[in-house]
Amino acid sequence: MEDGPQRAVQGLGSFPWYVGGTQVLGLACVVITGVWMGSYHGGYAWDGSGQEFNVHPLCMVLGLVFLYGDAILVYRVFRNESKRNIKVLHAVLHLLALIISIVGIVAVFDFHNHNKIPNMYSLHSWCGMLTFVLFCVQWLMGLGFFLFPGTLMALRSWYLPLHVFFGLAMLAMSLATCLLGISEKLFFSIQHTYSQFAPEGILGNMLGLLLVAFGILVGYVVTREDFRRPPHPEEEALSVHFETLTEGRGSPTSP
Amino acid sequence: MEDGPQRAVQGLGSFPWYVGGTQVLGLACVVITGVWMGSYHGGYAWDGSGQEFNVHPLCMVLGLVFLYGDAILVYRVFRNESKRNIKVLHAVLHLLALIISIVGIVAVFDFHNHNKIPNMYSLHSWCGMLTFVLFCVQWLMGLGFFLFPGTLMALRSWYLPLHVFFGLAMLAMSLATCLLGISEKLFFSIQHTYSQFAPEGILGNMLGLLLVAFGILVGYVVTREDFRRPPHPEEEALSVHFETLTEGRGSPTSP
Repeated sequence: MEDGPQRAVQGLGSFPWYVGGTQVLGLACVVITGVWMGSYHGGYAWDGSGQEFNVHPLCMVLGLVFLYGDAILVYRVFRNESKRNIKVLHAVLHLLALIISIVGIVAVFDFHNHNKIPNMYSLHSWCGMLTFVLFCVQWLMGLGFFLFPGTLMALRSWYLPLHVFFGLAMLAMSLATCLLGISEKLFFSIQHTYSQFAPEGILGNMLGLLLVAFGILVGYVVTREDFRRPPHPEEEALSVHFETLTEGRGSPTSP
Repeated sequence: MEDGPQRAVQGLGSFPWYVGGTQVLGLACVVITGVWMGSYHGGYAWDGSGQEFNVHPLCMVLGLVFLYGDAILVYRVFRNESKRNIKVLHAVLHLLALIISIVGIVAVFDFHNHNKIPNMYSLHSWCGMLTFVLFCVQWLMGLGFFLFPGTLMALRSWYLPLHVFFGLAMLAMSLATCLLGISEKLFFSIQHTYSQFAPEGILGNMLGLLLVAFGILVGYVVTREDFRRPPHPEEEALSVHFETLTEGRGSPTSP
Protein backbone atom coordinates (compact mmCIF):
# COMPACT_ATOMS: atom_id res chain seq x y z
CA MET A 1 0.00 0.00 0.00
CA GLU A 2 2.98 2.27 0.40
CA ASP A 3 2.96 3.46 -3.19
CA GLY A 4 -0.79 4.07 -3.32
CA PRO A 5 -0.87 7.87 -2.99
CA GLN A 6 2.27 8.14 -5.12
CA ARG A 7 0.62 6.13 -7.89
CA ALA A 8 -2.52 8.19 -7.54
CA VAL A 9 -0.66 11.45 -8.11
CA GLN A 10 1.41 10.09 -11.01
CA GLY A 11 -0.08 11.11 -14.34
CA LEU A 12 -2.76 13.28 -12.75
CA GLY A 13 -1.59 16.32 -14.75
CA SER A 14 -3.69 15.16 -17.69
CA PHE A 15 -6.65 14.16 -15.52
CA PRO A 16 -8.58 17.48 -15.74
CA TRP A 17 -8.25 17.44 -19.52
CA TYR A 18 -9.74 13.98 -19.75
CA VAL A 19 -12.60 14.87 -17.40
CA GLY A 20 -13.12 18.15 -19.28
CA GLY A 21 -13.22 16.13 -22.49
CA THR A 22 -15.99 13.89 -21.14
CA GLN A 23 -18.04 16.95 -20.19
CA VAL A 24 -17.56 18.65 -23.56
CA LEU A 25 -18.51 15.45 -25.40
CA GLY A 26 -21.44 14.67 -23.10
CA LEU A 27 -22.87 18.18 -23.31
CA ALA A 28 -22.34 18.21 -27.08
CA CYS A 29 -24.41 15.01 -27.32
CA VAL A 30 -27.25 16.52 -25.25
CA VAL A 31 -27.20 19.80 -27.20
CA ILE A 32 -27.06 18.13 -30.61
CA THR A 33 -29.93 15.79 -29.67
CA GLY A 34 -31.94 18.80 -28.46
CA VAL A 35 -31.20 20.83 -31.58
CA TRP A 36 -31.88 17.88 -33.87
CA MET A 37 -35.35 17.29 -32.41
CA GLY A 38 -35.95 21.04 -32.10
CA SER A 39 -34.87 22.12 -35.57
CA TYR A 40 -35.71 19.14 -37.77
CA HIS A 41 -38.75 17.78 -35.94
CA GLY A 42 -40.67 20.80 -34.63
CA GLY A 43 -39.60 21.00 -30.99
CA TYR A 44 -41.26 19.63 -27.89
CA ALA A 45 -44.78 19.09 -26.53
CA TRP A 46 -46.75 16.60 -24.41
CA ASP A 47 -49.83 16.00 -26.54
CA GLY A 48 -49.29 12.64 -28.20
CA SER A 49 -47.85 14.29 -31.33
CA GLY A 50 -44.41 13.88 -32.89
CA GLN A 51 -43.30 16.68 -30.59
CA GLU A 52 -43.98 14.41 -27.64
CA PHE A 53 -41.82 11.75 -29.26
CA ASN A 54 -39.00 14.33 -29.39
CA VAL A 55 -38.90 14.36 -25.59
CA HIS A 56 -37.76 10.72 -25.72
CA PRO A 57 -34.29 11.02 -27.31
CA LEU A 58 -33.48 14.19 -25.38
CA CYS A 59 -34.36 12.62 -22.01
CA MET A 60 -32.56 9.36 -22.75
CA VAL A 61 -29.32 11.06 -23.84
CA LEU A 62 -29.49 13.45 -20.89
CA GLY A 63 -30.41 10.76 -18.35
CA LEU A 64 -28.92 7.43 -19.40
CA VAL A 65 -25.84 8.86 -21.09
CA PHE A 66 -24.70 12.22 -19.72
CA LEU A 67 -25.90 11.99 -16.10
CA TYR A 68 -25.18 8.26 -15.99
CA GLY A 69 -21.60 8.89 -17.15
CA ASP A 70 -21.16 11.73 -14.67
CA ALA A 71 -22.51 9.57 -11.83
CA ILE A 72 -19.74 7.07 -12.61
CA LEU A 73 -17.10 9.79 -12.86
CA VAL A 74 -17.75 11.26 -9.39
CA TYR A 75 -15.48 8.61 -7.84
CA ARG A 76 -12.61 9.98 -9.91
CA VAL A 77 -13.45 13.69 -9.91
CA PHE A 78 -14.06 14.02 -6.16
CA ARG A 79 -11.10 11.86 -5.28
CA ASN A 80 -10.34 13.70 -2.04
CA GLU A 81 -13.89 14.00 -0.67
CA SER A 82 -15.24 11.57 1.91
CA LYS A 83 -16.38 8.28 0.43
CA ARG A 84 -19.78 8.60 2.08
CA ASN A 85 -20.49 11.93 0.36
CA ILE A 86 -19.39 10.58 -3.00
CA LYS A 87 -21.63 7.53 -2.58
CA VAL A 88 -24.61 9.79 -1.91
CA LEU A 89 -23.77 12.01 -4.91
CA HIS A 90 -23.38 8.89 -7.07
CA ALA A 91 -26.81 7.64 -5.95
CA VAL A 92 -28.47 11.05 -6.41
CA LEU A 93 -27.08 11.52 -9.93
CA HIS A 94 -28.27 8.03 -10.83
CA LEU A 95 -31.68 8.78 -9.32
CA LEU A 96 -31.86 11.91 -11.45
CA ALA A 97 -30.87 9.85 -14.49
CA LEU A 98 -33.58 7.33 -13.56
CA ILE A 99 -36.32 9.97 -13.23
CA ILE A 100 -35.38 11.70 -16.49
CA SER A 101 -35.22 8.39 -18.35
CA ILE A 102 -38.67 7.42 -17.00
CA VAL A 103 -40.04 10.69 -18.47
CA GLY A 104 -38.35 9.79 -21.77
CA ILE A 105 -39.79 6.27 -21.79
CA VAL A 106 -43.31 7.48 -20.89
CA ALA A 107 -43.06 10.02 -23.74
CA VAL A 108 -42.41 7.40 -26.41
CA PHE A 109 -45.05 4.95 -25.10
CA ASP A 110 -47.58 7.79 -24.94
CA PHE A 111 -46.70 8.88 -28.48
CA HIS A 112 -47.02 5.31 -29.78
CA ASN A 113 -50.34 4.74 -28.00
CA HIS A 114 -51.82 8.00 -29.31
CA ASN A 115 -50.81 7.10 -32.83
CA LYS A 116 -51.67 3.38 -32.71
CA ILE A 117 -48.03 2.42 -33.24
CA PRO A 118 -47.13 -0.91 -31.63
CA ASN A 119 -44.70 -0.77 -28.72
CA MET A 120 -41.62 -2.89 -28.07
CA TYR A 121 -41.14 -4.52 -31.45
CA SER A 122 -37.76 -3.10 -32.51
CA LEU A 123 -34.25 -4.10 -31.43
CA HIS A 124 -33.86 -0.54 -30.12
CA SER A 125 -36.82 -1.02 -27.79
CA TRP A 126 -35.66 -4.46 -26.62
CA CYS A 127 -32.13 -3.26 -25.87
CA GLY A 128 -33.46 -0.07 -24.29
CA MET A 129 -35.93 -1.85 -22.01
CA LEU A 130 -33.32 -4.41 -20.98
CA THR A 131 -30.87 -1.61 -20.15
CA PHE A 132 -33.50 0.34 -18.23
CA VAL A 133 -34.64 -2.67 -16.17
CA LEU A 134 -31.04 -3.64 -15.36
CA PHE A 135 -30.37 -0.02 -14.44
CA CYS A 136 -33.30 0.01 -11.99
CA VAL A 137 -32.16 -3.29 -10.46
CA GLN A 138 -28.58 -2.02 -10.18
CA TRP A 139 -29.74 1.25 -8.55
CA LEU A 140 -31.83 -0.60 -5.97
CA MET A 141 -29.06 -3.11 -5.26
CA GLY A 142 -26.54 -0.28 -4.94
CA LEU A 143 -28.81 1.41 -2.43
CA GLY A 144 -29.30 -1.78 -0.43
CA PHE A 145 -25.69 -2.90 -0.46
CA PHE A 146 -23.79 0.38 -0.12
CA LEU A 147 -26.06 2.95 1.53
CA PHE A 148 -28.24 0.78 3.79
CA PRO A 149 -26.24 0.88 7.04
CA GLY A 150 -27.04 -2.68 8.13
CA THR A 151 -25.49 -4.47 5.16
CA LEU A 152 -22.63 -6.78 6.07
CA MET A 153 -19.19 -5.76 4.89
CA ALA A 154 -18.67 -9.21 3.40
CA LEU A 155 -21.78 -8.77 1.25
CA ARG A 156 -20.59 -5.33 0.12
CA SER A 157 -17.21 -6.75 -0.82
CA TRP A 158 -18.87 -9.51 -2.79
CA TYR A 159 -21.19 -7.18 -4.67
CA LEU A 160 -18.81 -4.28 -5.34
CA PRO A 161 -16.96 -5.72 -8.38
CA LEU A 162 -20.28 -6.82 -9.92
CA HIS A 163 -21.74 -3.34 -9.36
CA VAL A 164 -18.72 -1.71 -11.03
CA PHE A 165 -18.62 -4.15 -13.96
CA PHE A 166 -22.34 -3.97 -14.70
CA GLY A 167 -22.27 -0.19 -14.26
CA LEU A 168 -19.82 0.12 -17.15
CA ALA A 169 -21.52 -2.63 -19.18
CA MET A 170 -24.84 -0.81 -18.85
CA LEU A 171 -23.28 2.46 -19.99
CA ALA A 172 -22.12 0.60 -23.11
CA MET A 173 -25.61 -0.90 -23.55
CA SER A 174 -27.19 2.50 -23.09
CA LEU A 175 -24.92 3.99 -25.75
CA ALA A 176 -25.58 1.11 -28.16
CA THR A 177 -29.32 1.66 -27.63
CA CYS A 178 -28.88 5.36 -28.46
CA LEU A 179 -27.08 4.44 -31.69
CA LEU A 180 -29.97 2.11 -32.58
CA GLY A 181 -32.44 4.91 -31.80
CA ILE A 182 -30.56 7.40 -34.01
CA SER A 183 -30.41 4.91 -36.87
CA GLU A 184 -34.13 4.05 -36.51
CA LYS A 185 -35.14 7.71 -36.40
CA LEU A 186 -33.10 8.48 -39.54
CA PHE A 187 -34.55 5.52 -41.45
CA PHE A 188 -38.07 6.64 -40.46
CA SER A 189 -37.70 10.34 -41.16
CA ILE A 190 -35.28 10.65 -44.11
CA GLN A 191 -35.62 7.21 -45.65
CA HIS A 192 -35.22 8.49 -49.21
CA THR A 193 -32.51 11.08 -48.70
CA TYR A 194 -30.34 9.38 -46.05
CA SER A 195 -28.35 7.60 -48.75
CA GLN A 196 -27.81 10.96 -50.51
CA PHE A 197 -26.03 12.23 -47.40
CA ALA A 198 -28.86 14.54 -46.31
CA PRO A 199 -27.72 17.05 -43.64
CA GLU A 200 -29.99 15.44 -41.01
CA GLY A 201 -28.38 12.08 -41.69
CA ILE A 202 -24.90 13.50 -41.27
CA LEU A 203 -25.98 15.25 -38.06
CA GLY A 204 -27.41 12.00 -36.68
CA ASN A 205 -24.30 10.03 -37.67
CA MET A 206 -22.06 12.65 -36.07
CA LEU A 207 -24.14 12.45 -32.89
CA GLY A 208 -23.62 8.69 -32.93
CA LEU A 209 -19.85 9.06 -33.18
CA LEU A 210 -19.82 11.65 -30.39
CA LEU A 211 -21.76 9.24 -28.17
CA VAL A 212 -19.18 6.54 -28.91
CA ALA A 213 -16.37 8.99 -28.09
CA PHE A 214 -18.10 9.95 -24.81
CA GLY A 215 -18.40 6.29 -23.81
CA ILE A 216 -14.77 5.53 -24.65
CA LEU A 217 -13.48 8.56 -22.75
CA VAL A 218 -15.61 7.88 -19.65
CA GLY A 219 -14.53 4.23 -19.74
CA TYR A 220 -10.89 5.26 -20.05
CA VAL A 221 -11.01 7.76 -17.17
CA VAL A 222 -12.76 5.24 -14.91
CA THR A 223 -10.47 2.30 -15.64
CA ARG A 224 -7.08 4.07 -15.99
CA GLU A 225 -4.90 2.86 -13.16
CA ASP A 226 -3.32 6.15 -12.10
CA PHE A 227 -6.67 7.98 -12.12
CA ARG A 228 -8.01 5.69 -9.37
CA ARG A 229 -9.08 7.18 -6.06
CA PRO A 230 -6.14 6.93 -3.66
CA PRO A 231 -6.65 5.06 -0.37
CA HIS A 232 -7.48 7.45 2.49
CA PRO A 233 -6.15 5.61 5.57
CA GLU A 234 -8.34 7.56 8.00
CA GLU A 235 -11.43 6.21 6.30
CA GLU A 236 -10.15 2.67 6.16
CA ALA A 237 -12.16 1.43 9.11
CA LEU A 238 -15.32 3.14 7.91
CA SER A 239 -15.96 1.65 4.55
CA VAL A 240 -15.65 -1.59 2.70
CA HIS A 241 -14.17 0.31 -0.22
CA PHE A 242 -10.97 0.84 1.63
CA GLU A 243 -10.78 -2.76 2.59
CA THR A 244 -11.08 -3.52 -1.11
CA LEU A 245 -8.57 -0.88 -2.11
CA THR A 246 -6.09 -2.22 0.40
CA GLU A 247 -6.49 -5.90 -0.35
CA GLY A 248 -6.90 -5.71 -4.09
CA ARG A 249 -5.09 -2.44 -4.66
CA GLY A 250 -5.74 -1.11 -8.11
CA SER A 251 -8.23 -3.82 -8.80
CA PRO A 252 -10.92 -3.02 -11.35
CA THR A 253 -13.43 -3.77 -8.63
CA SER A 254 -12.80 -0.54 -6.77
CA PRO A 255 -15.02 2.28 -7.97
CA MET B 1 3.00 -10.83 -4.74
CA GLU B 2 2.74 -13.66 -2.28
CA ASP B 3 -1.00 -14.07 -2.70
CA GLY B 4 -0.90 -13.98 -6.51
CA PRO B 5 -1.21 -17.69 -7.28
CA GLN B 6 -3.59 -18.13 -4.36
CA ARG B 7 -5.87 -15.39 -5.74
CA ALA B 8 -5.58 -16.88 -9.20
CA VAL B 9 -6.86 -20.25 -8.03
CA GLN B 10 -9.63 -18.80 -5.87
CA GLY B 11 -12.95 -18.87 -7.68
CA LEU B 12 -11.58 -20.79 -10.67
CA GLY B 13 -14.19 -23.53 -10.19
CA SER B 14 -16.72 -21.50 -12.14
CA PHE B 15 -14.18 -20.40 -14.77
CA PRO B 16 -14.84 -23.23 -17.29
CA TRP B 17 -18.58 -22.53 -17.12
CA TYR B 18 -18.09 -18.88 -17.93
CA VAL B 19 -15.73 -19.67 -20.81
CA GLY B 20 -18.13 -22.37 -22.02
CA GLY B 21 -20.90 -19.79 -21.85
CA THR B 22 -18.99 -17.40 -24.10
CA GLN B 23 -18.44 -20.15 -26.65
CA VAL B 24 -22.09 -21.25 -26.64
CA LEU B 25 -23.25 -17.64 -27.03
CA GLY B 26 -20.65 -16.78 -29.66
CA LEU B 27 -21.38 -19.88 -31.75
CA ALA B 28 -25.13 -19.28 -31.37
CA CYS B 29 -24.63 -15.78 -32.79
CA VAL B 30 -22.66 -17.10 -35.79
CA VAL B 31 -25.16 -19.91 -36.45
CA ILE B 32 -28.23 -17.67 -36.12
CA THR B 33 -26.68 -15.08 -38.45
CA GLY B 34 -25.89 -17.83 -40.94
CA VAL B 35 -29.36 -19.35 -40.73
CA TRP B 36 -31.05 -15.93 -40.91
CA MET B 37 -29.25 -15.02 -44.14
CA GLY B 38 -29.57 -18.57 -45.44
CA SER B 39 -33.26 -19.16 -44.70
CA TYR B 40 -34.79 -15.70 -45.05
CA HIS B 41 -32.55 -14.18 -47.71
CA GLY B 42 -31.67 -16.98 -50.11
CA GLY B 43 -28.22 -18.08 -49.00
CA TYR B 44 -24.81 -17.05 -50.24
CA ALA B 45 -23.13 -16.16 -53.53
CA TRP B 46 -20.46 -13.81 -54.92
CA ASP B 47 -22.21 -12.27 -57.90
CA GLY B 48 -23.28 -8.80 -56.79
CA SER B 49 -26.74 -10.05 -55.79
CA GLY B 50 -28.46 -9.98 -52.43
CA GLN B 51 -26.80 -13.32 -51.77
CA GLU B 52 -23.44 -11.58 -51.89
CA PHE B 53 -24.69 -9.09 -49.32
CA ASN B 54 -25.49 -12.07 -47.07
CA VAL B 55 -21.78 -12.84 -46.84
CA HIS B 56 -21.32 -9.51 -45.02
CA PRO B 57 -23.19 -10.12 -41.73
CA LEU B 58 -21.92 -13.69 -41.47
CA CYS B 59 -18.27 -12.66 -41.92
CA MET B 60 -18.54 -9.71 -39.55
CA VAL B 61 -20.14 -11.73 -36.73
CA LEU B 62 -17.67 -14.57 -37.26
CA GLY B 63 -14.64 -12.29 -37.55
CA LEU B 64 -15.15 -9.15 -35.48
CA VAL B 65 -17.31 -10.77 -32.79
CA PHE B 66 -16.65 -14.47 -32.27
CA LEU B 67 -12.97 -14.73 -33.28
CA TYR B 68 -12.23 -11.28 -31.84
CA GLY B 69 -13.74 -12.31 -28.50
CA ASP B 70 -11.86 -15.60 -28.52
CA ALA B 71 -8.59 -13.82 -29.32
CA ILE B 72 -9.10 -11.76 -26.15
CA LEU B 73 -10.04 -14.81 -24.10
CA VAL B 74 -6.85 -16.78 -24.88
CA TYR B 75 -5.01 -14.91 -22.10
CA ARG B 76 -7.49 -16.37 -19.62
CA VAL B 77 -8.10 -19.81 -21.14
CA PHE B 78 -4.43 -20.71 -21.64
CA ARG B 79 -3.40 -19.32 -18.30
CA ASN B 80 -0.59 -21.82 -17.79
CA GLU B 81 0.93 -21.76 -21.28
CA SER B 82 4.01 -19.67 -22.03
CA LYS B 83 3.22 -16.00 -22.59
CA ARG B 84 5.03 -16.02 -25.94
CA ASN B 85 2.80 -18.78 -27.33
CA ILE B 86 -0.34 -17.04 -26.12
CA LYS B 87 0.76 -13.78 -27.73
CA VAL B 88 1.25 -15.56 -31.06
CA LEU B 89 -2.15 -17.28 -30.76
CA HIS B 90 -3.74 -13.92 -29.86
CA ALA B 91 -2.18 -12.31 -32.95
CA VAL B 92 -3.11 -15.21 -35.24
CA LEU B 93 -6.76 -15.25 -34.11
CA HIS B 94 -6.93 -11.49 -34.63
CA LEU B 95 -5.32 -11.89 -38.07
CA LEU B 96 -7.98 -14.48 -38.94
CA ALA B 97 -10.65 -12.07 -37.67
CA LEU B 98 -9.09 -9.33 -39.82
CA ILE B 99 -9.04 -11.44 -43.00
CA ILE B 100 -12.63 -12.66 -42.52
CA SER B 101 -13.86 -9.14 -41.81
CA ILE B 102 -12.11 -7.84 -44.96
CA VAL B 103 -14.05 -10.46 -46.97
CA GLY B 104 -17.25 -9.27 -45.27
CA ILE B 105 -16.52 -5.60 -46.02
CA VAL B 106 -15.60 -6.30 -49.66
CA ALA B 107 -18.88 -8.26 -50.00
CA VAL B 108 -21.06 -5.33 -48.98
CA PHE B 109 -19.15 -2.75 -51.03
CA ASP B 110 -19.33 -5.07 -54.06
CA PHE B 111 -23.06 -5.61 -53.55
CA HIS B 112 -23.66 -1.85 -53.22
CA ASN B 113 -21.58 -1.04 -56.30
CA HIS B 114 -23.33 -3.67 -58.43
CA ASN B 115 -26.72 -2.31 -57.38
CA LYS B 116 -25.84 1.42 -57.52
CA ILE B 117 -26.46 1.79 -53.78
CA PRO B 118 -24.32 4.53 -52.19
CA ASN B 119 -21.69 3.40 -49.73
CA MET B 120 -20.88 4.75 -46.29
CA TYR B 121 -23.94 6.88 -45.63
CA SER B 122 -25.48 5.12 -42.61
CA LEU B 123 -24.49 5.24 -38.96
CA HIS B 124 -23.87 1.48 -39.19
CA SER B 125 -21.29 2.04 -41.92
CA TRP B 126 -19.61 4.93 -40.08
CA CYS B 127 -19.33 2.97 -36.83
CA GLY B 128 -18.27 -0.16 -38.67
CA MET B 129 -15.55 1.57 -40.68
CA LEU B 130 -14.26 3.37 -37.59
CA THR B 131 -14.11 0.07 -35.70
CA PHE B 132 -12.40 -1.71 -38.59
CA VAL B 133 -9.76 1.02 -39.05
CA LEU B 134 -9.03 1.13 -35.31
CA PHE B 135 -8.83 -2.66 -35.29
CA CYS B 136 -6.23 -2.62 -38.09
CA VAL B 137 -4.21 0.07 -36.28
CA GLN B 138 -4.43 -1.88 -33.00
CA TRP B 139 -3.35 -5.11 -34.70
CA LEU B 140 -0.31 -3.45 -36.31
CA MET B 141 0.62 -1.67 -33.09
CA GLY B 142 0.25 -4.91 -31.13
CA LEU B 143 2.56 -6.61 -33.61
CA GLY B 144 5.14 -3.84 -33.39
CA PHE B 145 5.05 -3.39 -29.64
CA PHE B 146 4.65 -6.96 -28.37
CA LEU B 147 5.97 -9.34 -31.04
CA PHE B 148 8.73 -7.30 -32.68
CA PRO B 149 11.76 -8.36 -30.62
CA GLY B 150 13.55 -5.00 -30.69
CA THR B 151 10.83 -2.98 -28.94
CA LEU B 152 11.96 -1.44 -25.67
CA MET B 153 10.34 -2.81 -22.51
CA ALA B 154 9.48 0.72 -21.41
CA LEU B 155 7.52 1.27 -24.63
CA ARG B 156 5.71 -2.06 -24.15
CA SER B 157 4.79 -1.11 -20.59
CA TRP B 158 3.47 2.24 -21.77
CA TYR B 159 1.38 0.75 -24.57
CA LEU B 160 0.01 -2.35 -22.79
CA PRO B 161 -2.83 -0.70 -20.82
CA LEU B 162 -3.91 1.24 -23.93
CA HIS B 163 -3.89 -1.97 -25.99
CA VAL B 164 -6.03 -3.77 -23.41
CA PHE B 165 -8.46 -0.88 -22.95
CA PHE B 166 -8.96 -0.25 -26.68
CA GLY B 167 -9.22 -3.98 -27.31
CA LEU B 168 -12.29 -4.18 -25.08
CA ALA B 169 -13.66 -0.83 -26.30
CA MET B 170 -13.43 -2.05 -29.89
CA LEU B 171 -15.25 -5.28 -29.03
CA ALA B 172 -18.06 -3.09 -27.66
CA MET B 173 -17.96 -0.92 -30.80
CA SER B 174 -18.01 -4.01 -32.97
CA LEU B 175 -21.06 -5.35 -31.13
CA ALA B 176 -22.85 -1.99 -31.32
CA THR B 177 -22.16 -1.94 -35.06
CA CYS B 178 -23.68 -5.43 -35.37
CA LEU B 179 -26.81 -4.26 -33.55
CA LEU B 180 -27.05 -1.31 -35.98
CA GLY B 181 -26.63 -3.71 -38.89
CA ILE B 182 -29.37 -6.03 -37.62
CA SER B 183 -31.75 -3.11 -37.12
CA GLU B 184 -30.96 -1.67 -40.56
CA LYS B 185 -31.44 -5.05 -42.26
CA LEU B 186 -34.80 -5.55 -40.52
CA PHE B 187 -36.06 -2.07 -41.44
CA PHE B 188 -35.03 -2.70 -45.07
CA SER B 189 -36.41 -6.21 -45.44
CA ILE B 190 -39.52 -6.38 -43.22
CA GLN B 191 -40.38 -2.70 -42.97
CA HIS B 192 -44.14 -3.32 -42.95
CA THR B 193 -44.30 -6.41 -40.77
CA TYR B 194 -41.55 -5.68 -38.23
CA SER B 195 -44.03 -3.81 -36.01
CA GLN B 196 -46.40 -6.82 -36.19
CA PHE B 197 -43.71 -8.97 -34.59
CA ALA B 198 -42.84 -10.88 -37.77
CA PRO B 199 -40.76 -14.01 -37.02
CA GLU B 200 -37.75 -12.57 -38.85
CA GLY B 201 -37.91 -9.49 -36.65
CA ILE B 202 -37.99 -11.56 -33.49
CA LEU B 203 -35.09 -13.67 -34.78
CA GLY B 204 -33.05 -10.52 -35.51
CA ASN B 205 -33.86 -9.00 -32.12
CA MET B 206 -32.94 -12.24 -30.35
CA LEU B 207 -29.64 -12.29 -32.24
CA GLY B 208 -29.05 -8.73 -31.02
CA LEU B 209 -29.62 -9.73 -27.39
CA LEU B 210 -27.36 -12.78 -27.77
CA LEU B 211 -24.60 -10.53 -29.13
CA VAL B 212 -25.04 -8.24 -26.11
CA ALA B 213 -24.87 -11.28 -23.79
CA PHE B 214 -21.70 -12.51 -25.55
CA GLY B 215 -20.04 -9.11 -25.11
CA ILE B 216 -20.98 -8.88 -21.44
CA LEU B 217 -19.76 -12.40 -20.69
CA VAL B 218 -16.45 -11.95 -22.53
CA GLY B 219 -15.95 -8.60 -20.77
CA TYR B 220 -16.71 -10.20 -17.41
CA VAL B 221 -14.32 -13.14 -17.89
CA VAL B 222 -11.53 -10.82 -19.05
CA THR B 223 -11.89 -8.26 -16.25
CA ARG B 224 -12.78 -10.50 -13.29
CA GLU B 225 -9.96 -10.26 -10.80
CA ASP B 226 -9.63 -13.93 -9.82
CA PHE B 227 -9.75 -15.08 -13.46
CA ARG B 228 -6.55 -13.16 -14.23
CA ARG B 229 -3.48 -15.03 -15.42
CA PRO B 230 -1.34 -15.78 -12.39
CA PRO B 231 2.23 -14.45 -12.37
CA HIS B 232 4.71 -17.11 -13.52
CA PRO B 233 7.93 -16.14 -11.75
CA GLU B 234 10.15 -18.10 -14.15
CA GLU B 235 8.96 -15.92 -17.03
CA GLU B 236 9.34 -12.68 -15.13
CA ALA B 237 12.59 -11.67 -16.77
CA LEU B 238 11.35 -12.58 -20.23
CA SER B 239 8.35 -10.40 -20.71
CA VAL B 240 7.07 -6.98 -19.85
CA HIS B 241 3.75 -8.57 -18.93
CA PHE B 242 5.20 -10.01 -15.81
CA GLU B 243 6.77 -6.75 -14.83
CA THR B 244 3.30 -5.25 -15.13
CA LEU B 245 1.65 -8.08 -13.26
CA THR B 246 4.16 -7.75 -10.45
CA GLU B 247 4.17 -3.99 -10.12
CA GLY B 248 0.52 -3.33 -10.72
CA ARG B 249 -0.77 -6.69 -9.57
CA GLY B 250 -4.31 -7.21 -10.64
CA SER B 251 -4.30 -3.98 -12.59
CA PRO B 252 -6.81 -3.80 -15.43
CA THR B 253 -3.86 -3.12 -17.70
CA SER B 254 -2.59 -6.68 -17.62
CA PRO B 255 -4.08 -8.87 -20.34
